[in-house]
Amino acid sequence: MDIEILTIGTELLLGFTIDTNGAEIAQAVAAIGGQVVRRTSVGDEPELIRSGVAEALARTGLVITTGGLGPTRDDITKDIVAEVFEAPLEFQGEIWQQLVQRFERMGRKAPESNRSQAFVPRGATVLRNQWGTAPGLWLEGARGTAILLPGVPGEMRQLLKHEVIPRLMARATGTVVRSATIRTTGIAESALAQRLGNIEAELAPLSLAYLPSLPGVDLRLTAWSLAPDDADRRLDAGSRRLRELAGEFVYGKGDEDLAALLLDRARSRKQKLAVAESCTGGLVGGRITAIPGSSEVFLGGVIAYEDAVKLRDLAVSADTIAAHGAVSEEVARAMAAGVARRFGADLAIAVTGIAGPDGGTAAKPVGLVWMATSVAGAVESFSYVFPGAREEVRARATQWALFQLLKRIK
Amino acid sequence: MDIEILTIGTELLLGFTIDTNGAEIAQAVAAIGGQVVRRTSVGDEPELIRSGVAEALARTGLVITTGGLGPTRDDITKDIVAEVFEAPLEFQGEIWQQLVQRFERMGRKAPESNRSQAFVPRGATVLRNQWGTAPGLWLEGARGTAILLPGVPGEMRQLLKHEVIPRLMARATGTVVRSATIRTTGIAESALAQRLGNIEAELAPLSLAYLPSLPGVDLRLTAWSLAPDDADRRLDAGSRRLRELAGEFVYGKGDEDLAALLLDRARSRKQKLAVAESCTGGLVGGRITAIPGSSEVFLGGVIAYEDAVKLRDLAVSADTIAAHGAVSEEVARAMAAGVARRFGADLAIAVTGIAGPDGGTAAKPVGLVWMATSVAGAVESFSYVFPGAREEVRARATQWALFQLLKRIK
Repeated sequence: MDIEILTIGTELLLGFTIDTNGAEIAQAVAAIGGQVVRRTSVGDEPELIRSGVAEALARTGLVITTGGLGPTRDDITKDIVAEVFEAPLEFQGEIWQQLVQRFERMGRKAPESNRSQAFVPRGATVLRNQWGTAPGLWLEGARGTAILLPGVPGEMRQLLKHEVIPRLMARATGTVVRSATIRTTGIAESALAQRLGNIEAELAPLSLAYLPSLPGVDLRLTAWSLAPDDADRRLDAGSRRLRELAGEFVYGKGDEDLAALLLDRARSRKQKLAVAESCTGGLVGGRITAIPGSSEVFLGGVIAYEDAVKLRDLAVSADTIAAHGAVSEEVARAMAAGVARRFGADLAIAVTGIAGPDGGTAAKPVGLVWMATSVAGAVESFSYVFPGAREEVRARATQWALFQLLKRIK
Repeated sequence: MDIEILTIGTELLLGFTIDTNGAEIAQAVAAIGGQVVRRTSVGDEPELIRSGVAEALARTGLVITTGGLGPTRDDITKDIVAEVFEAPLEFQGEIWQQLVQRFERMGRKAPESNRSQAFVPRGATVLRNQWGTAPGLWLEGARGTAILLPGVPGEMRQLLKHEVIPRLMARATGTVVRSATIRTTGIAESALAQRLGNIEAELAPLSLAYLPSLPGVDLRLTAWSLAPDDADRRLDAGSRRLRELAGEFVYGKGDEDLAALLLDRARSRKQKLAVAESCTGGLVGGRITAIPGSSEVFLGGVIAYEDAVKLRDLAVSADTIAAHGAVSEEVARAMAAGVARRFGADLAIAVTGIAGPDGGTAAKPVGLVWMATSVAGAVESFSYVFPGAREEVRARATQWALFQLLKRIK
């Protein structure tokens, strides 16, 4: 079942509105074994909508549109699609009555402009919209099927779930499109690809995508149009293989968060955690406390931005800073040991680095970050030169530091 | 200047990735008077990319693509577009050298797989990518112009700004589409709309959009297809009027960041800042240290997640916590005063709250946050019940606390 999505609205082309409808439809369609093969956005212009719908139908015979069903003058999707299907518009008193009642419930009178929403192309199925004023429409004809949904995300989502997906399932073939994700960090996309080698052939018919982002590279396996059991079996085997190959760089699966995994491990070991942050300035603590229930594990920390704070609150010695600089292995280690002692923490993370854009030297370039972890008093340290701008360096250092601690207590 | 955008990536059609590149390009193009007339997304399949590019060129003669320029096997955009332009790929040693040097700067060896990124279609202009490994490309031929950009949003954005828009401006028509933004926080969209009243008629021909997000509601004025001077004059007058009406809720304009404004003010007053964070767990420090040069103003802080830390490092008394609870006006005030004293800071921010999802009571619901600011020893406190999930509560509380301190030193 190949489907195209046509999102309609001039504001989508101005770029001030991010199109989330397309992504939601794609996910819902994939879950029942359909495949979105193309997404198109056009403005509220008759010719653009007409050609968008006609071309999509010619390619796949099945198009879902969003937008342009409202009561204002620029809402013309229904009129154009009715023309494409050569179906004249007919007034349906029942829809108008529902609109009138909807407004009455809010203590208002239905504006005359809403009457346009009660016109329906002959032969179309009305998808009742209990969440707004614009009904969805389902048209079938010689050219294929067009499903018209409103553009308001909340209304689109409800109609999709309650009216569209159940009807599409009746057409589904019994196959599904399913994905599995392996999450890695601390390795660049190209290095990971080299490590995995020519794995695509081995994984076929599954497809493999490399998805790089600040917290690391996700590997997404997708099974296309397979029976559910077959898809799951292949995804399991493929995931195991990817985990083997990516080895120590794997930290989780699906949408698992590294901080949540770390907290789970610490909780099961009944250990408490504290942090000492210089260049990350609170981001490590922010990531940890983003997880509900983090207070069971996390004690708190010191944001030691100024060197005086490192001396006073983390017991870093002035000599160490003078000899090695604030961004150094020695200082990172002293910070980790110092915060663990001060907080009585079994586990500690310390970060000190040069986030940029200024402050780099030949010996210590922008992006250099020294990190240390402490587990029951034993300190380990490591450094990395992170690429990217200030916020990338900081986000990557945060992820890397969390990862190093997780590896030690896994 | 009509432009089409083609975003390439199977991920975009599975719905796991929201396409933000398309929106950014559309905004940048509109700003120089161009118009995006269609956006299309296709998967990483040769035929789909070929037809997507060819159809876009046939319609407008100008297409910008994103995605598929990376070093892995599914990155085929360049190969396909080169075919469309009948331009053979040629190895450019200079690009390879830049890649090798980029990896060397990070102390690593460039993987062989990255060599593919040094191949360039004959006659194409290389748009140098200093922010990642995939160069952009600009191809011109009998069929029109194709501009190929990487899909990683940070890299796409930089190439668009520094390489693409300046070149496109040479083709522009003399009129512009320009916007001006007024940033507000601490007021809901509906309340702001009520305050502004029926302002749209007065602002015409400018259009006004309300853009609510976690840090607050932005008001965006847009001038459409006007001469540059006329657009600027109207936007200036409109902005002034909006500032008057939105009053004390305005904190900035354009893409100004609240933390940066706060640091500027503190710097000009030669004052130093420290933070004490409970429920935000480091987010306030994270926001502040995101700004380059924050070390001139920011000393650091205490992440006082566990109550023991509030006692030990912030001199909050156990009696105060016992009498009022850790989330209370008294504790927020004591935290602000305590961190200011401990750090010798002229300015301090303290935050303690119930971020949820658990921990709320009838008297202290989820979302309740007490905040305090200290300026030269004088503490002020305020509370708010923030709507939304845990991360929304935390992000909104962070913004609100920064805003309250900025107002005191403005």
